[in-house]
Amino acid sequence: MAVYTDVADDELRAFVALYDIGEVLACKGIAEGVENSNYLVTTETGNFILTLYEKRVAREDLPFFIALMEHLAKNGVACPTPLHGRDGKALRELCGRPAAIVTFLAGMWPRRIQPFHCAGVGRALALLHAAGASFCMQRANDLSVAGWRRLFKACAARAGEVQTGLGDELAEELSFLEAAWPTELPRGIIHADLFPDNVFFRNRDLSGLIDFYFACTDFLAYDLAVCLNAWCFESDGSLNVTKAQLLLDNYRQDRPLTPAEMAALPLLARGSALRFLLTRLFDWLNHPAGALVRRKDPLEFLRKLRFHRTVAGLRDYGLDV
Amino acid sequence: MAVYTDVADDELRAFVALYDIGEVLACKGIAEGVENSNYLVTTETGNFILTLYEKRVAREDLPFFIALMEHLAKNGVACPTPLHGRDGKALRELCGRPAAIVTFLAGMWPRRIQPFHCAGVGRALALLHAAGASFCMQRANDLSVAGWRRLFKACAARAGEVQTGLGDELAEELSFLEAAWPTELPRGIIHADLFPDNVFFRNRDLSGLIDFYFACTDFLAYDLAVCLNAWCFESDGSLNVTKAQLLLDNYRQDRPLTPAEMAALPLLARGSALRFLLTRLFDWLNHPAGALVRRKDPLEFLRKLRFHRTVAGLRDYGLDV
Repeated sequence: MAVYTDVADDELRAFVALYDIGEVLACKGIAEGVENSNYLVTTETGNFILTLYEKRVAREDLPFFIALMEHLAKNGVACPTPLHGRDGKALRELCGRPAAIVTFLAGMWPRRIQPFHCAGVGRALALLHAAGASFCMQRANDLSVAGWRRLFKACAARAGEVQTGLGDELAEELSFLEAAWPTELPRGIIHADLFPDNVFFRNRDLSGLIDFYFACTDFLAYDLAVCLNAWCFESDGSLNVTKAQLLLDNYRQDRPLTPAEMAALPLLARGSALRFLLTRLFDWLNHPAGALVRRKDPLEFLRKLRFHRTVAGLRDYGLDV
Repeated sequence: MAVYTDVADDELRAFVALYDIGEVLACKGIAEGVENSNYLVTTETGNFILTLYEKRVAREDLPFFIALMEHLAKNGVACPTPLHGRDGKALRELCGRPAAIVTFLAGMWPRRIQPFHCAGVGRALALLHAAGASFCMQRANDLSVAGWRRLFKACAARAGEVQTGLGDELAEELSFLEAAWPTELPRGIIHADLFPDNVFFRNRDLSGLIDFYFACTDFLAYDLAVCLNAWCFESDGSLNVTKAQLLLDNYRQDRPLTPAEMAALPLLARGSALRFLLTRLFDWLNHPAGALVRRKDPLEFLRKLRFHRTVAGLRDYGLDV
C-alpha cells in the first residue's frame, strides 16, 4: 500500500480540467503500487487512475514508461493507457510531482494462485514480449546482474541480522552469478516485476497488467524467470510443478524458447530470486520507523534461490524435455 | 489511511453476489476512515463502498450505525445508505469481520478550509440533528465527560513525554470539566466526529457526510463544539472568527440554540478539545511500531483547549449577541 502525497481537492479539479474526462466527482487514495501514490479518480465519464510519481521512480525514465504503456495498449496488451490532455501531454506536474492519468482496468489481482492464473500469465507475458518488439525506446535494467553488487554491499554488513550466515551465502551466490550470467540471450522489453498484485483477472480471464515502472530492456527469458518465482511457489517454499509447467508451456506456445534460453532458465531463476532477495533485504534493513508500507520478507526469496540451486534439469520445472 | 484486512478476490465475488448490484469489476483498498478497512468496489452497476469493521468498532453497535445511516439518508441527509442483500440483510460477515456495502457519495473532502465550507457544515449539522430527532435507537457517548478520566489515567504517567507539565494541566482541566459539565441541554443524535475528512464537497456545495462510527446520543450543541474545533482554527492555533461565525450562524438558522446552549458553548468546546486531545495522546503514546496509520498531533488540541479557556463571551466566536 502506498499513498504518500495528499492531493488537495482544488488542485485536483484544476488538474483534471486539463483533460476531456468531465468534472471530478471523487478521488480516493488507493492501496496499489508500492513506489508511487495512486488515486482512483471518478469523473462524470467514469473511473481513472491518477499516479503521482514519488522519488524512487527516476523522472528521466517517465517518458519511457508512458510511451511503453501507450505502445503496448495499442498493440493488444491489456494495460493502462495514459490519457493525453487537451495540450497533447500525458505527463505533467501535480503537487510538485510528475503525474499522469491512465485508464482504469477492470479486474482484481488473485490472492490465492490457482494453476489457471499461471497459464494466463504465461500467455500474457508472451504477448507482452511480442508487442514490445516493435517499441523503439530502450531502458537498461539497473536491477540486473550489474546492479546487484551495489545492493549487496549496502546490505552485507547487516545481512546476519536477518539470518545467520546470510551475508556469506549471498556473497558466494553473487560471485557465481556474475561469472556465469549469460550475455547472448534474446532481448526485448520486459515487465520485470510481474507479481500477482500487478495482474488483474475477471473470474478466470486475465484482464490486465499494471505497474510498468520496472519495465526495461533485458533478456526476455529473465522475465519468465521472475514469473516463475512470483507465481509458482507455494507458501511453504516448494515449487508447484503444475503451475510452473502451465506458466512455461503457455508462454512457449506463443513464443518458443531457444535452446540457450531453456538451458539458462535455472540460472536466470537464481538471478531473479537474488534480485528480489536483495531489494527486500535492503528495504528490510532500511525501513523507516514511520513508513506506511509493510516490509516484505526477504527470506522467502532465499528459499526460492536455494531451490533453483538444486535444479538438475528442466524436468524439475515440469517441462517435458 | 487504513486498510487492515486484505479481501481475497474470490471471497469478494461471493459476497457481492448476495446483492443485486451486478458482477464485481474491481476492488481497491482506499485511504478513508481510520477505524475500519474500506474498499471502493466497482461493479457492473457503479461504484460502492465496502467496509469491514475492525476491532475498534464494537460489534454490538453496528446495528445502530447501519440503521442510523439508513434513517438519515431517508430523511434527506446526504450520507452513505447501507445496501440490503437479497436476504434483506445489510450487515454480514467477510474475512471473519462484520461487513456492509454502502452507496458511494460523490465529492471530495476539503484540504484547505474556506469560509463557505464552514457555512455548509453548519447547515448540514442542523439538518442532521433535525433528521436524527425521529430516529428511535440510542447509543451512549462513551467518549464524553464520563469516559475521559479512564482515558486520562491511561495516559497521565507518560503525558510529560509529549510536553512538560501536560499531565498536570490535563488533570486540572478534567476536574474542572467533570464538575462544570452541563446535564440539561437538548439531546439527540450527534455525529461526534465531523472533521473535514468526513465531509464531502462538490465545488462549493456540501455533497455528503460520512463515517458515522462515533455517532451517539448526546448534547446537540456538543456536536457544534466539535465542528468549531475541527473547522474553524487556523494551523497557527488561532480561531478564524469569520469561519466560526459562519458555522454557528448557519447552524442557528435551521436550529436556534437555547440560551443554555449558548452559555455552555465555550465549556462544550473545551470538553470537545479535551476529548480529541486525550484520544490522540493515547494513540500517540500507544502507537504500534509497524502501524500503517500516521499519528495525529495531540498538542493541536491543547492549543484549542487553551483558546477556549480564554473565551470571555460568545463574541469571541464571532457571534453578535
